[in-house]
Amino acid sequence: MSAVHLTLIGIGTGNPEHLTLQAIRAINAQDLILIPRKGPGKDDLAELRRAICDEVLENEATRLVEFDLPVRDAATADYRRRVDDWHDAIAEAWRGAMAEQPEAARVALLVWGDPSLYDSTLRIAARLDPPPQVEVIPGITSLQALTAAHAIPVNEIGAPFVVTTGRRLRDAGWPDGIDTLVVMLDGTCAFADIDAGGVHIWWGGYVGMPEQIICEGPLAEVAERIVQMRAEARARHGWIMDIYILRRDHGA
Amino acid sequence: MSAVHLTLIGIGTGNPEHLTLQAIRAINAQDLILIPRKGPGKDDLAELRRAICDEVLENEATRLVEFDLPVRDAATADYRRRVDDWHDAIAEAWRGAMAEQPEAARVALLVWGDPSLYDSTLRIAARLDPPPQVEVIPGITSLQALTAAHAIPVNEIGAPFVVTTGRRLRDAGWPDGIDTLVVMLDGTCAFADIDAGGVHIWWGGYVGMPEQIICEGPLAEVAERIVQMRAEARARHGWIMDIYILRRDHGA
Ligand SMILES: C[S@@+](CC[C@H](N)C(=O)[O-])C[C@H]1O[C@@H](n2cnc3c(N)ncnc32)[C@H](O)[C@@H]1O
Ligand SMILES: C[S@@+](CC[C@H](N)C(=O)[O-])C[C@H]1O[C@@H](n2cnc3c(N)ncnc32)[C@H](O)[C@@H]1O
Repeated sequence: MSAVHLTLIGIGTGNPEHLTLQAIRAINAQDLILIPRKGPGKDDLAELRRAICDEVLENEATRLVEFDLPVRDAATADYRRRVDDWHDAIAEAWRGAMAEQPEAARVALLVWGDPSLYDSTLRIAARLDPPPQVEVIPGITSLQALTAAHAIPVNEIGAPFVVTTGRRLRDAGWPDGIDTLVVMLDGTCAFADIDAGGVHIWWGGYVGMPEQIICEGPLAEVAERIVQMRAEARARHGWIMDIYILRRDHGA
Repeated sequence: MSAVHLTLIGIGTGNPEHLTLQAIRAINAQDLILIPRKGPGKDDLAELRRAICDEVLENEATRLVEFDLPVRDAATADYRRRVDDWHDAIAEAWRGAMAEQPEAARVALLVWGDPSLYDSTLRIAARLDPPPQVEVIPGITSLQALTAAHAIPVNEIGAPFVVTTGRRLRDAGWPDGIDTLVVMLDGTCAFADIDAGGVHIWWGGYVGMPEQIICEGPLAEVAERIVQMRAEARARHGWIMDIYILRRDHGA
């Protein structure tokens, strides 16, 4: 089998208008677009990916093929090992889907947000054999959708910021020497368990999507409300994705 | 004067195809678009902003107005004060440009990259009186254009990263407990003066633009080459914008 040209197309975070002209052109340049499916009631967003293609795809030769996204094996204790095995399984699922169109030379995946940010598609692509020629089309990230929703800059003037995960904030605490944190992949409201003194939070769920909800204020005052908003929204929609910025007063 | 609706439209980093559908819609919804001008031979990119409007603007009622961007007063010693004064002067320049179209209710600026990232447009907008109703349209950042150019993720799996400036890297050194740094606003190749042991660099100039140049490798091996590429490109084009990611081996 000869190596395919694999394009990872960032599609933004749920607003079909996050699509760039470059992404639209790339979608229309494919033989095959692989659409992952997690199963009913999940946030697989396969619907949204299909809707995006319906909206912008004009190339009649482009085929969409769905594949079942494998689940992580909870029995594997080691975190890195569990992730590695899972990525292997996803690469295998891609291979299966690509085998349905063996003559497809240009294959793409529509990647949520931007392919560079807490996303494994690039790492999975590296598992294909022969290795594909990989092209990346940038997309609007959830961080940008969050700052746009609040109409705020992420950084203070000339100051650094950290982008991290909920798990890491819990395990390692607030990083030294940095006043601004962006927290993603937080399934358990790590913000509610840190020292809230002098900290402001800008939070958003489903940012960029019709379901978007946002809240901001001094962490001590709004943490409880956010925990509740999040739980209610999650119960209503069956899933949630949320992201937030924490900023502490200079020298707090 | 009644408050205007001010839209800050992220336009990406020089590739007109970075424009999102949302940005195109927003451009076409304006009465007035303000275009900053720095002066001949500068990286004011006024040309590029005009070209973008030429390309996507279909609303014949939308007016473009250029204004001269004030320069920072180098005589003001204090950095924060210098920046504050400069932002005041820019707000004044906006006011002047807007006065040419006093009936304009919807005014926009085309912001390089994303309006949230090392950009002062939001802070300048807050200086208008009465304060405008501000709307932000996210755009592709130079960080995403860099990672796309190299086809790499910015983070390691589940790991945090810091986004910082060249000045800060020089003054404060490598932040504790973090293996990945994104460095922007570095006019003096701070990467060439840090301990290069175990550090890899992914560098890019003019990312997303036709002039794009990239280089990557172990910092110890490629730092010199990048310094040279950067100097040559800067001499050739009269200006440069560059950005890079530094990653050190775990525990280095
Ligand atoms: C696996 S990461 C993917 C990030 C994505 N590549 C990006 O560029 O935003 C998933 C995390 O991104 C954040 N996220 C993605 N989409 C979001 C949305 N629409 N609203 C809020 N958070 C979102 C959440 O923190 C979620 O846990
Ligand atoms: C004032 S900041 C603006 C950043 C912009 N808002 C963004 O989202 O990328 C300017 C810095 O951004 C980076 N930058 C912007 N455009 C770039 C490009 N096309 N190539 C390389 N670096 C760029 C450089 O580090 C530059 O010093």
